[in-house]
Amino acid sequence: MDKEKKFVQEITARDEDFAKWYTDVVKVAKLCEYSNVKGCLNYLPNGYAIWENIQKNLDERFKKTGVENVYLPVLIPESLLQKEKDHIKGFAPEVAWVTQGGEEKLEERFCIRPTSETLFCDIWQKIVKSYRDLPKVWNQWNSVLRWEKTTRPFLRSREFLWQEGHTLHATSEEAEERTKQMFQVYYDFVTQDLAIPLICGKKTESEKFAGAKDTYTIEAMMHDGKALQSGTSHFFGNNFPDAFGIKYLNKENKLCSAYETSWGMSTRIIGAIIMVHGDDSGLVLPPKIAPTQVMVIPIAQNKSGVLEKANAIVMKLKEENIRVKIDEREKSPGFKFSEQESLGIPLRIEIGPKDIEKNQVIITRRDTREKIIISIDKLTTEIPKIMKQIQNDMYNRAKEFLDTHIYTAHNLEEMKKISQNQIGFIKTMWCGNKECEQKIKSEIEGFSSRCIPINSTEKITDHCIYCEQKAKHIVIWGKSY
Amino acid sequence: MDKEKKFVQEITARDEDFAKWYTDVVKVAKLCEYSNVKGCLNYLPNGYAIWENIQKNLDERFKKTGVENVYLPVLIPESLLQKEKDHIKGFAPEVAWVTQGGEEKLEERFCIRPTSETLFCDIWQKIVKSYRDLPKVWNQWNSVLRWEKTTRPFLRSREFLWQEGHTLHATSEEAEERTKQMFQVYYDFVTQDLAIPLICGKKTESEKFAGAKDTYTIEAMMHDGKALQSGTSHFFGNNFPDAFGIKYLNKENKLCSAYETSWGMSTRIIGAIIMVHGDDSGLVLPPKIAPTQVMVIPIAQNKSGVLEKANAIVMKLKEENIRVKIDEREKSPGFKFSEQESLGIPLRIEIGPKDIEKNQVIITRRDTREKIIISIDKLTTEIPKIMKQIQNDMYNRAKEFLDTHIYTAHNLEEMKKISQNQIGFIKTMWCGNKECEQKIKSEIEGFSSRCIPINSTEKITDHCIYCEQKAKHIVIWGKSY
Repeated sequence: MDKEKKFVQEITARDEDFAKWYTDVVKVAKLCEYSNVKGCLNYLPNGYAIWENIQKNLDERFKKTGVENVYLPVLIPESLLQKEKDHIKGFAPEVAWVTQGGEEKLEERFCIRPTSETLFCDIWQKIVKSYRDLPKVWNQWNSVLRWEKTTRPFLRSREFLWQEGHTLHATSEEAEERTKQMFQVYYDFVTQDLAIPLICGKKTESEKFAGAKDTYTIEAMMHDGKALQSGTSHFFGNNFPDAFGIKYLNKENKLCSAYETSWGMSTRIIGAIIMVHGDDSGLVLPPKIAPTQVMVIPIAQNKSGVLEKANAIVMKLKEENIRVKIDEREKSPGFKFSEQESLGIPLRIEIGPKDIEKNQVIITRRDTREKIIISIDKLTTEIPKIMKQIQNDMYNRAKEFLDTHIYTAHNLEEMKKISQNQIGFIKTMWCGNKECEQKIKSEIEGFSSRCIPINSTEKITDHCIYCEQKAKHIVIWGKSY
Repeated sequence: MDKEKKFVQEITARDEDFAKWYTDVVKVAKLCEYSNVKGCLNYLPNGYAIWENIQKNLDERFKKTGVENVYLPVLIPESLLQKEKDHIKGFAPEVAWVTQGGEEKLEERFCIRPTSETLFCDIWQKIVKSYRDLPKVWNQWNSVLRWEKTTRPFLRSREFLWQEGHTLHATSEEAEERTKQMFQVYYDFVTQDLAIPLICGKKTESEKFAGAKDTYTIEAMMHDGKALQSGTSHFFGNNFPDAFGIKYLNKENKLCSAYETSWGMSTRIIGAIIMVHGDDSGLVLPPKIAPTQVMVIPIAQNKSGVLEKANAIVMKLKEENIRVKIDEREKSPGFKFSEQESLGIPLRIEIGPKDIEKNQVIITRRDTREKIIISIDKLTTEIPKIMKQIQNDMYNRAKEFLDTHIYTAHNLEEMKKISQNQIGFIKTMWCGNKECEQKIKSEIEGFSSRCIPINSTEKITDHCIYCEQKAKHIVIWGKSY
């Protein structure tokens, strides 16, 4: 028990200092380490394995909607980045510039891609000639670089991993439909696979992506009540395609504009998993995304027959495609329990001489610590059921937290009070005027508009909380990561 | 037929101009396109899908041997690159330098990684303390950048995709064993999944990787007789670990040196697939790696019942995990045949009204153009068999080509003659002396030593073909890509 205690003590209590708790969890679970390049991460095996599962599940969902994967260059010539003026304005201050290649000083600088809209438009301009070449529904899994000043593991780093999907369509309607479709893919993936409930909607004019006409966002609430933008889907209209000279011949042989979308989800989402589900003992991973779903820990493993039986269970579970490991190290069970907990492994199986006598094992759920005694013969049918239950319970707990931490404010005074006394999001009415949004933002410290919810059944009956004119939208406000 | 002809004519005959044939195949099969950054490629869906299958198959093989995936930064500080002196000498002339981040001029330059030995050693130096932390068996799938002067699609480009595995071990023996193990993984993957026969062995001192003690290589012979280095596995001894100050405490609490390996395979291998298997009609893909294994082409598709039946076949094959597509476009069957051939799709299924009457389809093998008539009821059992046969036949044909294009030279004169009159590799005896190797290289134009074969049963009885001293090794020479 002493060793167990010591292991857990490395993690600051979550409600004592949330920021320090977060850093401790990342460190103890060995997810990543800072590198020698300020703000750039080394993704260690435990952290990268989570990302691999995210990639696998999300990529399957993409491909079902007809997405094709590609890979475009890491470098963008300065002249290319400058072709769409809102875009360059948005990104120029935060890119890294390559000025020398081998022994030669370059005539034109290249930046390391901060995002690849310009590269996609560049290749489309070369290969799209007719309506037969459309749509293009492309995606790439890559890393991008933005020269951020302050950085935090997964949440904000200079280099991060993501996928960026880019599509080109013959009509504005088709492009808008694709924007919403990918937004729905993100929603389904995050709620179903990561067990994270979401608020979703459109960004206001001032919070949109540089160069986009519409930006759809999914926003998750962390355990400290702050918002984490977890995925975005942008409709560009023909801004980029026109700036890049992309035109196609329609069936009537007429030259037409094309319409573009882009959509991305990054390793930030790992930060959301940590901050939505984690607890004082460390990470809690949803079974669908956990690299190891079950850890078998033999008790009194030197007693004859224990390791054999434990390994037989491992084999049996592997055959059912359950991601299972066994911890046979010469350490105390307490140490192993504690480590398995900090790593967020959804289920632990204890098996010792007494269990073997009774043909049973003791299963412990990571999320609730509930212990379940199960006959060894029923393991392969029961474990998938328990994992399904964990996945649902994790979602429901987080959903209750989200629902009970959204407050409605009817005027600025109320909003101020809530923001000072509660953690969570604040819902208000808004006239749609940019100035009002700015004023609210500056008066309610730390808050910004997260989104205008869509598919909301709520009626707009009230007045803008700032100017008191007739309201046009409901807005969700929050502090953001 | 006219359209079909036109499509094929875009490809230069392979024996007429091999280099042009290669470029034509890459273009017609839409595998990649050059970007606006000189020497950097856009990997298009058809090309990237091949790489995704390579990744999937190879990654599975890695993980079976205990490899864990990670991701380390894209940037390397100049001071870090300089820590191992052979390494910096090898790479400094061909890296791209970042000198500005956002608005600030950097105090220290960063290069975009040309390879990541230094980054792996840097993180290990921080986290490896004791024998319990070893071994580290890590790999990453990423892109690297080398400022090459001349570039060719897949074969040589400034940015390319690859995997780089890096491992750290407590003993020299264990590291050497891992070097050979990964070399074997490459051998199995390339021969079994890509149907490419190989010559394999050690590189000579002068051809080794910058900083390595031993470099193992697999070398494939292209259809023009040239060699393509297809994968390498390096044993570093403690060169890098010592230079980076990596030490670990052994069981007796003594500070010890650690031992390192690295191993890589890149998108060059796609070039090998093209140049080993391709023909005058375009790409020929081995079934195990083909993104689409079967293309169903309906004949007289406007006749009632044809598309229904064709789609029913597609569904049936999909259920058996066969990667199948249907071409329902309003184009002539001839055009479709020709396109499917240029893409290298291993099998085509034709189905028209007459076939439906007879409850059969016509299958055509891409590699031999053999036509096989099969009952629709037997499709799901026969197609996997035929694909297996294709995979074997492709390997055997390439193996015969390789075996009949390796010539033995007993003296320099003979070697010269062979090099002028034949395409292929030349086998000679060698004393092991660096100077002799250099002299042979300079006298036999375009040739360099590919490797000293291992597992060869051939006895070394002859003399070095240059100095005529007693031979120590057999060497395989070739022109290389």
